[in-house]
Amino acid sequence: MRRGLWLVPVWTTVALVLAADGAGVAGRIVGAALVEGRPYEKLAYLSDRIGARLSGSPQLEKAVQWTAEEFRRDGLEKVWTEKVMVPRWVRGEETGRILAPVQHELALTALGMSVPTPDEGITAEVVEVSEFEELHALGEAQVRGKIVLYNKPIFREGGRERGYGSAVGLRHAGAIEAAKLGGVATLIRSLGTADFRLPHTGSMGYEEGVPRIPSAAITAEDADLIHRLLASGEPVKAQLRLGCRNLPDAESANVIADLPGRERPDEIVLIGAHLDSWDLGTGAIDDGAGVVIVMETMRLLEAHGLIPRRTIRAVLFTNEENGLRGGRAYAENHKDELDRHVAAIESDAGSGAPLGFRVSAGPGGEDLVREIASHLGVIHASQVRTPGGGADISPMRSAGVPQIGMWQDTTHYFDYHHTAADTLDKVDPEDLRRNVAAMALLAYMLAESEEPLPRLPPRQQ
Amino acid sequence: MRRGLWLVPVWTTVALVLAADGAGVAGRIVGAALVEGRPYEKLAYLSDRIGARLSGSPQLEKAVQWTAEEFRRDGLEKVWTEKVMVPRWVRGEETGRILAPVQHELALTALGMSVPTPDEGITAEVVEVSEFEELHALGEAQVRGKIVLYNKPIFREGGRERGYGSAVGLRHAGAIEAAKLGGVATLIRSLGTADFRLPHTGSMGYEEGVPRIPSAAITAEDADLIHRLLASGEPVKAQLRLGCRNLPDAESANVIADLPGRERPDEIVLIGAHLDSWDLGTGAIDDGAGVVIVMETMRLLEAHGLIPRRTIRAVLFTNEENGLRGGRAYAENHKDELDRHVAAIESDAGSGAPLGFRVSAGPGGEDLVREIASHLGVIHASQVRTPGGGADISPMRSAGVPQIGMWQDTTHYFDYHHTAADTLDKVDPEDLRRNVAAMALLAYMLAESEEPLPRLPPRQQ
Repeated sequence: MRRGLWLVPVWTTVALVLAADGAGVAGRIVGAALVEGRPYEKLAYLSDRIGARLSGSPQLEKAVQWTAEEFRRDGLEKVWTEKVMVPRWVRGEETGRILAPVQHELALTALGMSVPTPDEGITAEVVEVSEFEELHALGEAQVRGKIVLYNKPIFREGGRERGYGSAVGLRHAGAIEAAKLGGVATLIRSLGTADFRLPHTGSMGYEEGVPRIPSAAITAEDADLIHRLLASGEPVKAQLRLGCRNLPDAESANVIADLPGRERPDEIVLIGAHLDSWDLGTGAIDDGAGVVIVMETMRLLEAHGLIPRRTIRAVLFTNEENGLRGGRAYAENHKDELDRHVAAIESDAGSGAPLGFRVSAGPGGEDLVREIASHLGVIHASQVRTPGGGADISPMRSAGVPQIGMWQDTTHYFDYHHTAADTLDKVDPEDLRRNVAAMALLAYMLAESEEPLPRLPPRQQ
Repeated sequence: MRRGLWLVPVWTTVALVLAADGAGVAGRIVGAALVEGRPYEKLAYLSDRIGARLSGSPQLEKAVQWTAEEFRRDGLEKVWTEKVMVPRWVRGEETGRILAPVQHELALTALGMSVPTPDEGITAEVVEVSEFEELHALGEAQVRGKIVLYNKPIFREGGRERGYGSAVGLRHAGAIEAAKLGGVATLIRSLGTADFRLPHTGSMGYEEGVPRIPSAAITAEDADLIHRLLASGEPVKAQLRLGCRNLPDAESANVIADLPGRERPDEIVLIGAHLDSWDLGTGAIDDGAGVVIVMETMRLLEAHGLIPRRTIRAVLFTNEENGLRGGRAYAENHKDELDRHVAAIESDAGSGAPLGFRVSAGPGGEDLVREIASHLGVIHASQVRTPGGGADISPMRSAGVPQIGMWQDTTHYFDYHHTAADTLDKVDPEDLRRNVAAMALLAYMLAESEEPLPRLPPRQQ
């Protein structure tokens, strides 16, 4: 904090200098993005014509090629791909049913990276918990041989206690914790905020030395039904068949495009999003939106000759969803340049109206971003909060690279996230343009700023 | 109209008489329904424990038995069933995909009563229309050999022009009109008002002498995608496989319970709903809600000794969804009593908050219902509109039986209607109790009223 206080005045000065000539540039960038931006057209191609882009799929590789070509068609001269080996998990057939005390088909979907069930499925009694504490309280005596249902509802605007983040740990570690107590499979109430009998997939993990048990997400409705049946005191028996498989890793790539800086081309403002998606929908909001916001930012700056001091680098990461291999590979491949990465900005929260930015930077950094964001009042995107970041850029954290997440309105994001309903119609073309305006302005101004954004101090890395 | 004007003063008088002692009874009925009504508990059993109740299924017959027993457990002494033979259409496996210009899995579901495709499916180009006029304009040259997609979006509060009713004709007659021009199958954009990649089933028909072609509903998202692909000028090729089958008719029954009137037991106020449901969800809103509103109305009046002049008869109709056999059988079996049916009231618009009643009666009838509804201001259910009715009671129309539909808030009804998401959680227990209050008061007062509700004149039958 002392260092922070010392730095603030410096940053205030820089910010004021920026503001002086900032308004003119801001008008050009925001105006261009709103009036002539074509992110929706790019997204329509990615979502409709290429479709779902699960790691290891031909569609993801088609997306790698198309985005690289599209960067070039948009006039960028320095475009390349960097090979990344990615998991190849495939879904297969999947069914589930309650066998007793009633017969009821479960609408379910395997969690990404789950092992399959045996061909004949797994049939067992269900025990229900809403937190790991409850699971541990049940202990091995009540868990061994059972299917564990993690049943924790989440809510729109649920925040830390009742939002997505409050339950995602159950999805990630649920199979591990259940298996440690002898559980034979897990079901999880879909991490979603709507009620349309729609299962939400997502990634899950295993731990070395702990049995790998199959895991699927069921719908909110079916989780509620099991809850009511169990509440009556009767045992609930269910059957689960998952045909998913882990195949050998496949070749994929990060797609990278540079808009070289006019004075300090070796200093880099990175803007990123992830190219892969889950397989159920067409990956329009997660993260097709982010991808085209990045692509269109590059096209607009290039087309208008808005070349700042530093390089702006677009990175379309592969394999965020089930591995983060793209993000890790980028940080590893570029480790020698990371001290010259002055900021990493990620858009991976859908296509809702931009509200501003979420920032993790060194002391004074938030103020600089706030000053830049002040030019976005016209599109109501001036809010700045800390902390911030994004999954793909997080491997650069330990090198001190400041992390910024595009902050979108996510009220309805988790209605559709990781489902078959993540499709183009969920995206408002005007909101998408506003997001391009916000990202383009931030990237340009951070790349133009005389002094770079303060780096993350060690205690924040 | 002249006859109407003559009758109005008479009815106003009757209404005022009713109102005088009406307030006390209304308080008892509404109070009891709100405070001690247990419709949700009944619905939980019907929806969770019995589940989907498609005609011909064992679940529907379980529902017949359970509701008859439940009427008796609730103290009704005159309870019986009347046999009805019903269609037995079963769904089977169903898949669809776009084959060109992209590969895309369609989320679809067969329309009820559709014939199957051949085992190898039907593969053909898709032509898209939004109305029959457009289909006819295309003519046989452009329809023969094709799959016809009826793509007409509907909207919440869409009214006559853009609501459910504006498109349901496409579902009912779509296969007939397409087949007349040589179409090989039809797809219809789901008649739904939400966007969660959820197909909505529903009934469809065939015509003697016209080839029977398979018909399925696709999701709004997939209909939009096909629209965008066609808009690019490229042909869209799709494949459709439906395993549905029509089996021989099965035995089912209407369930009937009487609360005999204290003065004129041979005059009847009928309250009804339908016991069957589509197979995808658990039939909670369509029409489990109506069923338990009727059941609870009977239980409350019986439990409180609120025995009006005339008989109140509950009828739980079988096979509304794909045949209307229950409604037709009732009208036929009871044709000699229909001149003594003073009103038929149906609840088949879900479990939303009651708004009032929709009425088709002879001149002055609407005013009487309005007077009765005026006692429902406390639950905001005082609105009365004309015309009104319900599918199951419509076969009594031609005998002049006044028709009244419970008028519920249906803002979100068509989000879930005929889908896998028609489940118990969609129902608000308090709204359900309010509906019981509204139906119980209306039934009681119509059965108590000195003069019966004016019958439908021939021109309205």
